[in-house]
Amino acid sequence: MSEYILVTGGAGYIGSHTVIELINNGYKVVVVDNLCNSSYDAIARVEFITKQKVDFFDVDLRDLESLNKVFDKFPIKGVIHFAALKAVGESTKIPLAYYDNNIGGTITLLTAMQKHEVKTIVFSSSATVYGDATRFENMIPIPEHCPNDPTNPYGKTKFMIEHILKDIYGADNQWQTAILRYFNPIGAHPSGLLGEDPLGIPNNLLPYLAQVAIGRREKLSIFGNDYDSHDGTPIRDYIHVVDLAKGHIAALNYLKNLNGGLYREWNLGTGNGSTVFDVYHAFCKAVGKELPYEVVGRRGGDVLNLTANATRANTELKWEAKLTIEDACKDLWKWTTENPFGFNIDNYEWKVFSDDKEDYRNRLHTVKYDNFEVSFANRGAIIQKIVKNGINVVCGFDEPSRYIEKSNPFFGTTVGRVANRIGHSKFELNGKTYTLESNESSNTLHGGLDGYDKQYFFGPVAKQFKKDDKIINTFEFNYVDKDGHNGFPGDVECTIKYTVDDSSVAIEFVGEHLKDSPVEETIINLTNHSYFNISNTKSTDGTVIKAITNKQLEVNDELLPTGKFVPTHTDITKPTTLSADCAFDYCFVVDGNGSGIDTRDSELKQVIEATHPNSNIKFIAETTDPSFQLYTGIGINTPGFEPRSGFCIENARFVDAINHKEWANQVIVKKGQSYGSKVKYSFV
Amino acid sequence: MSEYILVTGGAGYIGSHTVIELINNGYKVVVVDNLCNSSYDAIARVEFITKQKVDFFDVDLRDLESLNKVFDKFPIKGVIHFAALKAVGESTKIPLAYYDNNIGGTITLLTAMQKHEVKTIVFSSSATVYGDATRFENMIPIPEHCPNDPTNPYGKTKFMIEHILKDIYGADNQWQTAILRYFNPIGAHPSGLLGEDPLGIPNNLLPYLAQVAIGRREKLSIFGNDYDSHDGTPIRDYIHVVDLAKGHIAALNYLKNLNGGLYREWNLGTGNGSTVFDVYHAFCKAVGKELPYEVVGRRGGDVLNLTANATRANTELKWEAKLTIEDACKDLWKWTTENPFGFNIDNYEWKVFSDDKEDYRNRLHTVKYDNFEVSFANRGAIIQKIVKNGINVVCGFDEPSRYIEKSNPFFGTTVGRVANRIGHSKFELNGKTYTLESNESSNTLHGGLDGYDKQYFFGPVAKQFKKDDKIINTFEFNYVDKDGHNGFPGDVECTIKYTVDDSSVAIEFVGEHLKDSPVEETIINLTNHSYFNISNTKSTDGTVIKAITNKQLEVNDELLPTGKFVPTHTDITKPTTLSADCAFDYCFVVDGNGSGIDTRDSELKQVIEATHPNSNIKFIAETTDPSFQLYTGIGINTPGFEPRSGFCIENARFVDAINHKEWANQVIVKKGQSYGSKVKYSFV
Repeated sequence: MSEYILVTGGAGYIGSHTVIELINNGYKVVVVDNLCNSSYDAIARVEFITKQKVDFFDVDLRDLESLNKVFDKFPIKGVIHFAALKAVGESTKIPLAYYDNNIGGTITLLTAMQKHEVKTIVFSSSATVYGDATRFENMIPIPEHCPNDPTNPYGKTKFMIEHILKDIYGADNQWQTAILRYFNPIGAHPSGLLGEDPLGIPNNLLPYLAQVAIGRREKLSIFGNDYDSHDGTPIRDYIHVVDLAKGHIAALNYLKNLNGGLYREWNLGTGNGSTVFDVYHAFCKAVGKELPYEVVGRRGGDVLNLTANATRANTELKWEAKLTIEDACKDLWKWTTENPFGFNIDNYEWKVFSDDKEDYRNRLHTVKYDNFEVSFANRGAIIQKIVKNGINVVCGFDEPSRYIEKSNPFFGTTVGRVANRIGHSKFELNGKTYTLESNESSNTLHGGLDGYDKQYFFGPVAKQFKKDDKIINTFEFNYVDKDGHNGFPGDVECTIKYTVDDSSVAIEFVGEHLKDSPVEETIINLTNHSYFNISNTKSTDGTVIKAITNKQLEVNDELLPTGKFVPTHTDITKPTTLSADCAFDYCFVVDGNGSGIDTRDSELKQVIEATHPNSNIKFIAETTDPSFQLYTGIGINTPGFEPRSGFCIENARFVDAINHKEWANQVIVKKGQSYGSKVKYSFV
Repeated sequence: MSEYILVTGGAGYIGSHTVIELINNGYKVVVVDNLCNSSYDAIARVEFITKQKVDFFDVDLRDLESLNKVFDKFPIKGVIHFAALKAVGESTKIPLAYYDNNIGGTITLLTAMQKHEVKTIVFSSSATVYGDATRFENMIPIPEHCPNDPTNPYGKTKFMIEHILKDIYGADNQWQTAILRYFNPIGAHPSGLLGEDPLGIPNNLLPYLAQVAIGRREKLSIFGNDYDSHDGTPIRDYIHVVDLAKGHIAALNYLKNLNGGLYREWNLGTGNGSTVFDVYHAFCKAVGKELPYEVVGRRGGDVLNLTANATRANTELKWEAKLTIEDACKDLWKWTTENPFGFNIDNYEWKVFSDDKEDYRNRLHTVKYDNFEVSFANRGAIIQKIVKNGINVVCGFDEPSRYIEKSNPFFGTTVGRVANRIGHSKFELNGKTYTLESNESSNTLHGGLDGYDKQYFFGPVAKQFKKDDKIINTFEFNYVDKDGHNGFPGDVECTIKYTVDDSSVAIEFVGEHLKDSPVEETIINLTNHSYFNISNTKSTDGTVIKAITNKQLEVNDELLPTGKFVPTHTDITKPTTLSADCAFDYCFVVDGNGSGIDTRDSELKQVIEATHPNSNIKFIAETTDPSFQLYTGIGINTPGFEPRSGFCIENARFVDAINHKEWANQVIVKKGQSYGSKVKYSFV
């Protein structure tokens, strides 16, 4: 069984990278972080990357009571302790805050650990504890036995915490304590999803240079080029943050294999020094252009060379840094260009969307434009709200608990594994018959009893970019649907990517049949079940729709397709006014030939437009899919809403396609393949 | 105006001595102490010694909210920070508790100080920060610039706090920070009322030796006699705690006179080393006998010589240690013999006796014997309860607020400045006429409107000793009644000393007309106003009394003595049964010649005995006074009590003595003289 590791400060730069490595190495992770200098988005992205739940608590380490509750809740085996304030310059200006946060927080953490008999800790220390190692002869590269003499409050907090840990081990030598002294962490996660997100003016070389590269800072200042190095600039030991993160796993595994306790320090560095110019050139190469810099005078306290002797970690922990400063520069540049303002997107905010205010699984994410606003939530990756010109144009609940009620008619949700009906809850694939649970008479509707509407999607990865001077926001959610869930074969990763601009929401549906899946083929059919209503009243009656087609799938008494296409009761290619007497719940056929499995590269086709005399909003739905279910909400029966409170345009593959040989290829996905489609809802 | 100084850990050994010196130097003191290793009794004794209120808060320094409230409440100008765990050996066993208490507490304190812009601090550091100074050449005696290298968690906490303070000064050089590094504090307050009260086995030489002297420990172990000193034992710098305390005042005054901030360390030591045998011999001399010891092997970590270089404190602070180890040994021996168990008296406990649970001015003090229990409270230095064989034999309230009600008929209280009546609220003394406020028709009764019954007495000094195998407890309260208060001339210090054994309560009343008083003569007449009731019912009816005399002061219509003695209505020298029809409120004359001003050396005379058929308790009152008021409680009119719920035997001088030339010498007290008397109530 995998072990729980508590990571303090797990939402931070090194913390979040370490959480990923922990998960990659089979650990379960609980993060506590007070987010004073970090963002929960980092955790959401870790979950998105790893597809693993990370239990998170917004707890200040100095709050013993809350911390004890976390220890009570999980069988924690060890702690990796990052949480700290970490800016050297700031520490000289507000030292008490540093002592309070770093030492006070550590004392509380250790108190909670003692209470819960957790005696394994990996501590995030710093090469800063050595101070100026050049004061000695023969201490460069710096070995762990180099005497300590930190020269600033930040470094002193690390030094003092090392002593506290040493004394605790002295009193109880069952403690397993790994002190990891970092040299200069740089770089970002190769996914481009995680990196350093410094507040204010960056203190460190590369984050500063990255801001120069994207135009947020004018030029880099190089403090002195008259040192005794190959190019005159000082030499430091820069280590890729992913290598550094892996050092923690090495330390943790080392402790795990011990019989008994230990207190020991390890340098985490590459053992190789690079000058400021070396790093500058590497980054310029990653960016593809020369960046402006200026050589200014030496900075007080700087010395020629602070390179690590990393031999102890190399030999004892069997760990060594493998990535180069070129790797780090490339990853940093990817992170910077894809997240120019770090995690902070100015028109996006989120809040917990659950009756349990500590439940970060379900959050409500809102992106705002001047006259347009869209909210998503993690459960079902739903669209909870779309507000156009002050009018809410989709059905949704303000109370999270309403979504869990049985009467919720799939408001706004992602639908899967297979949208719409599967006849008699049964299908054959590769000679095997799969039987599902029936949740609508004898059929399986919208994926079954535990469909995607009930799943908590990871993410979102929220990003913003400009295109043709338009601000565009994207929100990516994902969810892994394992083989056998709801009776479906195959492991499928479902990714829902919303793209929002100032008047539309587009959705990209991807269902990847994962390479490691236990079956060769599976079936996927995804859609979104938003109920639209542009009437500015509780009813869509009076809405005038006009569709691309009048052709629907003929259905039998069991609401299953017969295989034929028939015209609908009213010609909706002409303006048609919705009412109790003019209602629809049919699958309209945009392309009678169906589609390939991934339609994302097809052009979006406008399939419906709608207006209502009460508002001046025009609704347009476009999709790459071969059909859409037009459902005018006659069955809505949940408090606060009436029948016909909204209409749905469920872009998808043909209903029950798997049970119709000529349609089945619309939904069958081979291992390694991806299902894909797009829809776009515009409000103009 | 005097300044408020906050003293953390002010109830501790060095803290309490420093509070005394602060008060002696005109400061007002607020103490916070969590009493985890100290006793509030130390504060009560400081008040008793100094006759000054010390505001006290039972607050743990780590509780920022409570600490902030203290800073909100007082205009604190500076802080002397003692509060800390301080046992070196213990610190190696429970280091986290040391870091939490000492560093955590300091961080919180500094946070509260910053919030309230208090930037003056005197910090209680230790020579322990130097570690083994003999590792250097030429560092004995140890100067402040000796490099630090503490060798145990206790010392490290002091070292780290010094650095925290240094960094705070570095960030804001308005801070005034005095680091006082103590050498080896010894001795006790010369009053014998304050000293070190170590829990468990003492770690230090002299406290251990003191326990050997009183038989609590078998013998002293001397760790090595093969050092290179004159007698082979190691040399340390022992400093009298009173000298040490004065060093804090010197530092505080030094900071006060600065223009601007400072961070500086000063050694507080004598500059003279003494060997273990030097100290041993000095203490044996104080005790008057040779004490058992044994030379055992050297103790790890001990070194030959750790003497202070105190030059910096001598020259800069104009402070030097003046007391010798002989002084310290003498004071320690007085403290030890008078308080063999420190502040901890096994049959005594107290609790706050006020609706405000933080109000330590009024506490209820209870001493318990097998079948006898007595409770006192500070307001009025009252007897609140006497329980004999399970029967409460005095009238008293359980709710503190009842004592403040107007209907309270002086239950159990000390009465002063002048008990009983002063005719027409007027008297002459040294040719001057003093007019008082009338509080009973045209007379002044029991000291007037703001008499001693309404005053909060300091103390008690609670002690226990054995006499003829009997356990005896004493409780001393005091109160200074300033010239002009209630219209009386002269400064008078009133001391009420209760002596309790297993069946009696004796009271010694002392009124010292203070040497600095602004008048030559004053008047004093003190008594206690307990209402006795041995009936085990709500009424004293049926109580049989028998008195020493039948002679009373004749009174006129205004209840004032005529100057004549007359027999009472019933001959109470014979058994007399109290009832509604047989009631008394007369001053009975024990000695028609009156008395001198101080009768304490006279023999106690039995003046009343009483029994009641409902109980087998015999009550006996004895006094050294020439008269007593017998009042059978006919006027009691307070909820829960009936008329005749208790009877009083108010030993005192003759009623209105000052207005009767032939009696006046009973109450006139010259400057420097003391009024004195005794009473004893026995329950057999």
